[in-house]
Amino acid sequence: MKILGIESSATSASVAVCVDGKITAQSFSNTGLTHSQTLLPMVESTLTIAGVSIKDVDFFAVSNGPGSFTGVRIGVSAVKGMAQPLNKNCFQISTLEAIAKPLENTGCHAVSVMDARCNQVYTAQFDCECGFNRVTDDAAISIDELAETLKGIDKPIVLIGDGAIVTFNKLKDVVPAVSVASQGIRYQSAASVCLVAYEKAQNGEEGISANDVLPEYLRLSQAERELKMKNNK
Amino acid sequence: MKILGIESSATSASVAVCVDGKITAQSFSNTGLTHSQTLLPMVESTLTIAGVSIKDVDFFAVSNGPGSFTGVRIGVSAVKGMAQPLNKNCFQISTLEAIAKPLENTGCHAVSVMDARCNQVYTAQFDCECGFNRVTDDAAISIDELAETLKGIDKPIVLIGDGAIVTFNKLKDVVPAVSVASQGIRYQSAASVCLVAYEKAQNGEEGISANDVLPEYLRLSQAERELKMKNNK
Repeated sequence: MKILGIESSATSASVAVCVDGKITAQSFSNTGLTHSQTLLPMVESTLTIAGVSIKDVDFFAVSNGPGSFTGVRIGVSAVKGMAQPLNKNCFQISTLEAIAKPLENTGCHAVSVMDARCNQVYTAQFDCECGFNRVTDDAAISIDELAETLKGIDKPIVLIGDGAIVTFNKLKDVVPAVSVASQGIRYQSAASVCLVAYEKAQNGEEGISANDVLPEYLRLSQAERELKMKNNK
Repeated sequence: MKILGIESSATSASVAVCVDGKITAQSFSNTGLTHSQTLLPMVESTLTIAGVSIKDVDFFAVSNGPGSFTGVRIGVSAVKGMAQPLNKNCFQISTLEAIAKPLENTGCHAVSVMDARCNQVYTAQFDCECGFNRVTDDAAISIDELAETLKGIDKPIVLIGDGAIVTFNKLKDVVPAVSVASQGIRYQSAASVCLVAYEKAQNGEEGISANDVLPEYLRLSQAERELKMKNNK
């Protein structure tokens, strides 16, 4: 089973190919260049490195949010554009679940954190003892609210994601067991998007059609928030 | 500070660029193609993705073993060939240290394991509680010997590296706390080679000249072992 994974939900972008559960190629970029410039050339070069033709891809996987509204749209649009003409199914994967996936089996309590601006983080928690099990739903909350949920956890708490350092600096005095994942695995990666999708497929899920892939922003965009405030005045 | 990292010590190959401690680009391949075909094109494409000219690289970093004799030689030779004409210093990094680096801060006891054939593994252990601290030297030992060293460790023991699954299958009944790192971070990566080198540079190390970079095989090659046996007869 061949899966092409796309991750462009924040400042980094990556593309990976997974063959029967093994990552055979990945390209990762975190340069600040816009994903609209970098993503499709990376798809081409990653498929070339993997020696896989796009026609042979069985499933397309994308992290569909939460994240940067533009970044998530670029990734979702790219996957729709590739999967639809080939009539292949897709897996849409929570960005926060893919972020924490590298910590599975380490025994820690993994907390994905992405900077959501407006003094909030997008966050979700996963128990990484003997596997990888979701503890909380994806949410947009303040770091203070996050701190409350972490009190009483008696395992190493590992922050992972582009909001890890900011969150660590605010939490370290109130949640002593907290630390930050290694820089090499801290950011979103398409490899993890592929692996979460692969496990879903192994569990019998068939994915969804390209038409049904939708961004998951968790909250209204700034423009929508401003319009709502204006209408409420 | 810009570091170009090369990893080709086993079946996977990867190239990464690290700018001031942040991985800005990485290409990873695990297709079974020979590194002599894939490595230098990956150097070129990774530098392009990172927007970095090879002349602007401050340090070259390479995992110099243990590992496949041919793979290690290809990586070491590539780095020598790039660093020497540019008169830049190099960092040679233990493959086993780079393998375990992604587990830093997770609170687990990380065990790097690479298949060394002849019923042995190349292995080293690292304490990942509040950082990343080496516990044992790099060694080529049997899995039974490794099992002995793991008895009494009261943390989750995480196997990481291309020998993780083979080792897990032999250890799971005798070392109950043992598990395997996520597939997405299980293999050698140039990103971790860069990050270990970056920390050395941050600690004041200046690296070594390209001439002084040498493979570290930990034991004699098969040809040398056979010659020695023949001479001893």
